[in-house]
Amino acid sequence: MFSPTVQKLIDELSKLPGVGPKTAQRLTFHLLKLPPEDVLPLAQALIDVKETVRFCSRCFNLTEQELCSICLDAGRDQTTICVVEEPGDLISVERTHEYRGLYHVLGGALSPLDGIGPEDLHLAELFDRVGAGDVHEVIVATNPNMAGEATALYIAEELRPLTSAGTLRVTRPAAGLPMGGDLEYADEVTLGRAFTGRREL
Amino acid sequence: MFSPTVQKLIDELSKLPGVGPKTAQRLTFHLLKLPPEDVLPLAQALIDVKETVRFCSRCFNLTEQELCSICLDAGRDQTTICVVEEPGDLISVERTHEYRGLYHVLGGALSPLDGIGPEDLHLAELFDRVGAGDVHEVIVATNPNMAGEATALYIAEELRPLTSAGTLRVTRPAAGLPMGGDLEYADEVTLGRAFTGRREL
Repeated sequence: MFSPTVQKLIDELSKLPGVGPKTAQRLTFHLLKLPPEDVLPLAQALIDVKETVRFCSRCFNLTEQELCSICLDAGRDQTTICVVEEPGDLISVERTHEYRGLYHVLGGALSPLDGIGPEDLHLAELFDRVGAGDVHEVIVATNPNMAGEATALYIAEELRPLTSAGTLRVTRPAAGLPMGGDLEYADEVTLGRAFTGRREL
Repeated sequence: MFSPTVQKLIDELSKLPGVGPKTAQRLTFHLLKLPPEDVLPLAQALIDVKETVRFCSRCFNLTEQELCSICLDAGRDQTTICVVEEPGDLISVERTHEYRGLYHVLGGALSPLDGIGPEDLHLAELFDRVGAGDVHEVIVATNPNMAGEATALYIAEELRPLTSAGTLRVTRPAAGLPMGGDLEYADEVTLGRAFTGRREL
């Protein structure tokens, strides 16, 4: 019913995650109503991102060069690697200013139900880095959900020979009550983890 | 924290309706992971739509010419105008195959709370068409919600001189129970409307 040009835009928008045909149609009508100078920057941003942004060849963080700014920073602790799922997670860790080591971005988490196995993530590259370099600690900061926990266990298992030999520590950020949270409203799993991981005052 | 190119794409996506900064970031990471040949068609579709698609100068339907295919179709009933909010609504009416007249797309509905007044819609153009042409009926098919009802009442009020003179009918599609629906689960307003608008069997 729509002209081919309009239908093409609806189809392309429908391919985005979380955007169904109805949402794509609504977005298209919105874009049609805007003046060209409000729409063309989006098209240009898409083109620019594909032309200039790539993944760091070492840690798979976003970069516009061969290596990302963190890998190139000799001032950072080269013996510690923090493993995260996505570049956005890396940004969250950086914002804490608590971590001064390197990163490794997996590009997702293990999820057999969604067809995501070890070969779909940058796991082999992680094990190569850990095996080759002078790495003393791997902090597995995948998300504290089913897929993230499974990924963390998988990594710990694969690195077991090195941890058993005492040359490497594999750690995971503490699970527990969020700061500013409320004991009454904490779910049982979180509260249980907080008790298991209790510390001396 | 992101490179300017990535941040620019996040910013542009955030401007879309219903897309907040978090969703824009998620969409951006998704687009970054795709090969260029899966992203550039979206950029091209945006450019094409702005270059070729415009609004019909008479009824504000989508078209790639001066007038849309419906306005150009001399076989359609030129004395009836169906008023809708968006081009998508026009498509829904066309799909029924029950209507063979012309259309007028308002580009939205009156909503003072969102700052949308009569001058933001194609209402003046509607009244010009009705005043100038040989129009016998205006079917106000705006959405059966608050904004759509207000818009319908506004149009009926503005056209009152012509309807009082008997030269024009202003009608509204029936409100009532949807086909395949269930009396038990109908809301009071819909059921009330269905009773008010009951017909002889």
